[in-house]
Amino acid sequence: MKLLSFIHPNTGKRTWGYHQNDQVVDLGGHYPDLKSALMSDFLSDILPVGEQFPTFSLDEITFLPVIDNPDKIFCVGMNYQDKRIEFEQTIDAPTLFVRFPDSLTAHSAELCKPESSNEFDYEGELAVIIGKHASNVSCDNALQYVAGYSCFMDGSVRDMQYTWFTSGKNWQRTGAFGPWMVTRDEIENPQTLSINTWLNGQRVQHDSTQNMVRSVAELIAYISRFSPLNPGDVIITGSPGGVGKKRTPPLFMQEGDTIEVEISGIGRLSNRVAGLRVIESLHS
Amino acid sequence: MKLLSFIHPNTGKRTWGYHQNDQVVDLGGHYPDLKSALMSDFLSDILPVGEQFPTFSLDEITFLPVIDNPDKIFCVGMNYQDKRIEFEQTIDAPTLFVRFPDSLTAHSAELCKPESSNEFDYEGELAVIIGKHASNVSCDNALQYVAGYSCFMDGSVRDMQYTWFTSGKNWQRTGAFGPWMVTRDEIENPQTLSINTWLNGQRVQHDSTQNMVRSVAELIAYISRFSPLNPGDVIITGSPGGVGKKRTPPLFMQEGDTIEVEISGIGRLSNRVAGLRVIESLHS
Repeated sequence: MKLLSFIHPNTGKRTWGYHQNDQVVDLGGHYPDLKSALMSDFLSDILPVGEQFPTFSLDEITFLPVIDNPDKIFCVGMNYQDKRIEFEQTIDAPTLFVRFPDSLTAHSAELCKPESSNEFDYEGELAVIIGKHASNVSCDNALQYVAGYSCFMDGSVRDMQYTWFTSGKNWQRTGAFGPWMVTRDEIENPQTLSINTWLNGQRVQHDSTQNMVRSVAELIAYISRFSPLNPGDVIITGSPGGVGKKRTPPLFMQEGDTIEVEISGIGRLSNRVAGLRVIESLHS
Repeated sequence: MKLLSFIHPNTGKRTWGYHQNDQVVDLGGHYPDLKSALMSDFLSDILPVGEQFPTFSLDEITFLPVIDNPDKIFCVGMNYQDKRIEFEQTIDAPTLFVRFPDSLTAHSAELCKPESSNEFDYEGELAVIIGKHASNVSCDNALQYVAGYSCFMDGSVRDMQYTWFTSGKNWQRTGAFGPWMVTRDEIENPQTLSINTWLNGQRVQHDSTQNMVRSVAELIAYISRFSPLNPGDVIITGSPGGVGKKRTPPLFMQEGDTIEVEISGIGRLSNRVAGLRVIESLHS
């Protein structure tokens, strides 16, 4: 099942539902948002029957980030072998940083390049959405805590990244998350997916999730050891090699570019790059 | 004014209020929590008159973290000159990491040492609580966005810290935040405060906030450039030198220890160290 969050075309309110046969079925009457639905373990509860719910075409809706209000977004750095070589990474433990929800943007929405940045880089990634409370879970059990998988474009402001990544990864609307989440039952093994990133139609990243240094299960086990995970939490599992910063010459995203991430079995996340001008707060 | 969050002694519900003359005045009837109150800019709105509100003694209440549900907690690494020397830090930009709210604990509550850690270190810090929406603010204006200041014990699991700090700084109840927030009007200059950390009554850190590498105003300006700040958000401004990891021999916190942070003009945050055993989730 493909679950997604979107803006209702008539009411303008945020809602969520599922996508099937080019139609989007609105389930917002049951739970206000997808995170609440996951918290209620609705997947094992209701299997919605299309006829009873409002239905729209994909063209009618405005996508939201798959989960637009996660409590925790963990991002994994240097998790593909090629990327580790590019960045001369030597640390063995998973390197983790955090994104805040206001750094997210949706499928078909603008991915925002800060006007002050000359190094806005692309990183196509597999996103894992948690479906059940997970504390200190073992690798063997870890995938049982997954609700589903999605695509993620981890837009990276390299000229503000420095160490620890927080500054370069939290500009508003730099992390695209979508178009939908494919539920776990449809992806038997998350380590066999092909992942590709396309910049203006040119393929710039190409790898398989089998080349992750830490598997999805290992990441869940590792993180849940120190920080409990809950429904709607997200783990962004790292990017393959081929990023713009390490090319000769470097290749960065510019206003007007189209950036896409495609993962087999999930779909294609597509975004247009726009400029972000940050306006100073009016203090009173 | 000293504002705090606490558990109501009769109802057991979370509430908030102010502390004056050894009394705690419950303002929970106005707004459900301190973050909501800050969002409503209540400080410029109501000046509570004690008689009208339920009042308790300090002994009666159970403290909560000053803000127990911040949307964003930014933590600054290596922000005192002595600490930079200890850790041989060379990067000029503020190094930032993030804590999630479930890593917080309250004044007088247990500070939790993970049982698996042999290197649970202390870092006494000044916490800044944001009072108004701040986006891309200038240094000159930055302090106008502060609601108040508090003490923070940034308990650090050094043996899981690695790079990027996320793992070592997000164990549950490792960050003590309290006892209260002193409003900005009572602290004319946050760069003139004396900060001390005491482990079992022995002073282990001693410095002045004038030795911060980046001032509170600079940190707010820097962070608000890429990530908008909102009422209730928290910036933990870094720790002076003297941490246990860099002592010979090293000095770490153990179960049963008492750890305290005192900042002039604010108060003393006191915590007992307890062991944290993480129980595996029951998957179904």
